[in-house]
Amino acid sequence: MARVILLPGTDKRTRSGHPWVYLTQVGDVEGELTAGDVVEVFSAQGRFLGRGYANPSSQIFTRLLTRRRDEAIDREFFRRRLEAAAAYRQKVVKDTTAYRLVNAEADFLPALVVDRYGDFLAVQFLALGMDGFKPIIINLLIEMFAPHGIYERSDAGVRAREGLQPFSGPLYGETPKFVMMNENGVRYRVDLHTGQKTGFFLDQRENRQAVSELAAGARVLDCFCYTGGFAISAARAGAGSVLAVDSSGSALELAAQNAALNEVDDRCTFREANSFDELRGLADSGEQYDLVVLDPPAFTKSKEALAGAVRGYKEINLRALKLLVTGGYLATCSCSYHLGEALFLEIIAAAARDARRTLRLVEFRRQARDHPALLEVPETYYLKCGVFQVF
Amino acid sequence: MARVILLPGTDKRTRSGHPWVYLTQVGDVEGELTAGDVVEVFSAQGRFLGRGYANPSSQIFTRLLTRRRDEAIDREFFRRRLEAAAAYRQKVVKDTTAYRLVNAEADFLPALVVDRYGDFLAVQFLALGMDGFKPIIINLLIEMFAPHGIYERSDAGVRAREGLQPFSGPLYGETPKFVMMNENGVRYRVDLHTGQKTGFFLDQRENRQAVSELAAGARVLDCFCYTGGFAISAARAGAGSVLAVDSSGSALELAAQNAALNEVDDRCTFREANSFDELRGLADSGEQYDLVVLDPPAFTKSKEALAGAVRGYKEINLRALKLLVTGGYLATCSCSYHLGEALFLEIIAAAARDARRTLRLVEFRRQARDHPALLEVPETYYLKCGVFQVF
Repeated sequence: MARVILLPGTDKRTRSGHPWVYLTQVGDVEGELTAGDVVEVFSAQGRFLGRGYANPSSQIFTRLLTRRRDEAIDREFFRRRLEAAAAYRQKVVKDTTAYRLVNAEADFLPALVVDRYGDFLAVQFLALGMDGFKPIIINLLIEMFAPHGIYERSDAGVRAREGLQPFSGPLYGETPKFVMMNENGVRYRVDLHTGQKTGFFLDQRENRQAVSELAAGARVLDCFCYTGGFAISAARAGAGSVLAVDSSGSALELAAQNAALNEVDDRCTFREANSFDELRGLADSGEQYDLVVLDPPAFTKSKEALAGAVRGYKEINLRALKLLVTGGYLATCSCSYHLGEALFLEIIAAAARDARRTLRLVEFRRQARDHPALLEVPETYYLKCGVFQVF
Repeated sequence: MARVILLPGTDKRTRSGHPWVYLTQVGDVEGELTAGDVVEVFSAQGRFLGRGYANPSSQIFTRLLTRRRDEAIDREFFRRRLEAAAAYRQKVVKDTTAYRLVNAEADFLPALVVDRYGDFLAVQFLALGMDGFKPIIINLLIEMFAPHGIYERSDAGVRAREGLQPFSGPLYGETPKFVMMNENGVRYRVDLHTGQKTGFFLDQRENRQAVSELAAGARVLDCFCYTGGFAISAARAGAGSVLAVDSSGSALELAAQNAALNEVDDRCTFREANSFDELRGLADSGEQYDLVVLDPPAFTKSKEALAGAVRGYKEINLRALKLLVTGGYLATCSCSYHLGEALFLEIIAAAARDARRTLRLVEFRRQARDHPALLEVPETYYLKCGVFQVF
């Protein structure tokens, strides 16, 4: 096994538990190394830091799999990791047939995502080294969880940084395009082949539940609604009417099917539109809502684009505030990890000042617990969902 | 009604929704003003900013009650505010007979706290002006909520800043020293006369529920346990054993009664000790736990004392981490609002590095929803409860 020796003084973050060894940290590689191989990482002083897979052509040279010198990276290693991941979900996942079973770095299986939709699994292999373990992992998933089918959704952009082509396709068993899930008593049809992420925004599960508790009798506006997660859970929880807006016609088609499936299609309207424009149009026509949900895509995926993103978030929140009745609720999300809680709250406060509204914070929520984060890796703690009452 | 005219350039925060007008903002007072009177507040430019009660001998000269010029401060005003507060709790409070009915500034009733414990109400009047409305408010509480009794717990230190003496005592009906509450299926006996706050840490309700979901089969250590909130909810949720530590013998006596009441006394041990010392002693004797709860009192109530508080939080978290098995859980709280989420996470990360442990963030929680916060008043957004899995 090749040995990666770090440059002097670059091992602090690695010792603190960060699983990524950057190319810039690497001083020397002893022994032969083929991309994807498991290597051992040592500090300049010769201290063992861990074992992980390497990709010399990635900025992330090695992703650590274990810090225990006595732990080999073999089939049993992956079995133990998968067992631990499943045991954790037993504790924190309730009332749903769909959840994230493996959350990559935060399950100590870097670049591996496994989402469960009932009897079907959707998987992502997002780094070269993890891609090499695909046969072992798929075999273990079949043995341990007995799914009817496994579909690969390794079509995320991050694969390119690893020199990998995007790939989507069936890996095992039956893999219908559409599968069913049931979350907190709400049924959703999920596009396993081409839906966002692996088909559904599972990370918003607990937030959908929290927001739906405010929906009874309400006139609800759901912007960036995608396939109707927030909209339909609100309608099922007794919303009087729901207007759900998205720019994707195909997402709205599925959303409408989901509304019918849950027998709330009489109360749900789906509108294909740019949510920015729609928010302005609704304000101009004097519409009023009791609950507005804003769940936009990440307005920034880089630190550099943060200023523009700040303007975007402020704009949609300002427009939403103008649509809310006194005592109404705003549930406003951001999945940009570059935008921290403090800045996000500042943006919302600024929007409230401009709208001359007073906001009361009901709760500030994050991603669902099946999407744990690593304290040392801020990127893994990305989702924010502020719930406010508006006066 | 006296008119308070602010100094030029000092009205920004007030216009943004902050309910406190500081003495330093006040330029002039027109008309006769007796301490406790309702006044009208205007900007230097003559713009109406709101109506509130004044206390010329407090640093907070006026606390605004309304920003609507057409809204008089009379009995009907307080009725509307109390109705709105109750309606909000109907939405956000579940599975408990005890909750905060009025959360002062965040319910637009500054310096008034009303906590409900089943058929009994505990109230706090924490400013001179609100104290003057006591007869109206008590009368309305009786009329609207038909309690068996109302007990006043205006013994908080903040009263002194208003020139008020502390006061505790019965205001209406029966006011037994001990009352019962039932929260998420757990029964607690509450000391209505001399318990912390108004008898129980209601703001931790949702956190007790979240933490108890991790307790099945666990060996639990609950530090700063007070009357056993976290300890007993964990035991009821199936903890194998619970050691609960507090420095107050009388709190522990009640905690032991609560354990018996919930038939978990066979699994709960209560120990009168300084939690700092106990954490060290347990580590020295090689004890191991699956779940450790740290819910200390505020280590700082001022910005100036923050450095000392940071050391205190780091110390207890470091010691707790040494006691946890691999895969165990740490639930760590801070009720110091001067310590923000980012700094609190940094402290925990530093403790983890010192303890050579890797932490996975399960969820980061705040105060229960019946304790809403005002976005413009950071003091109202104080409670933090980080739940981590430890590796």
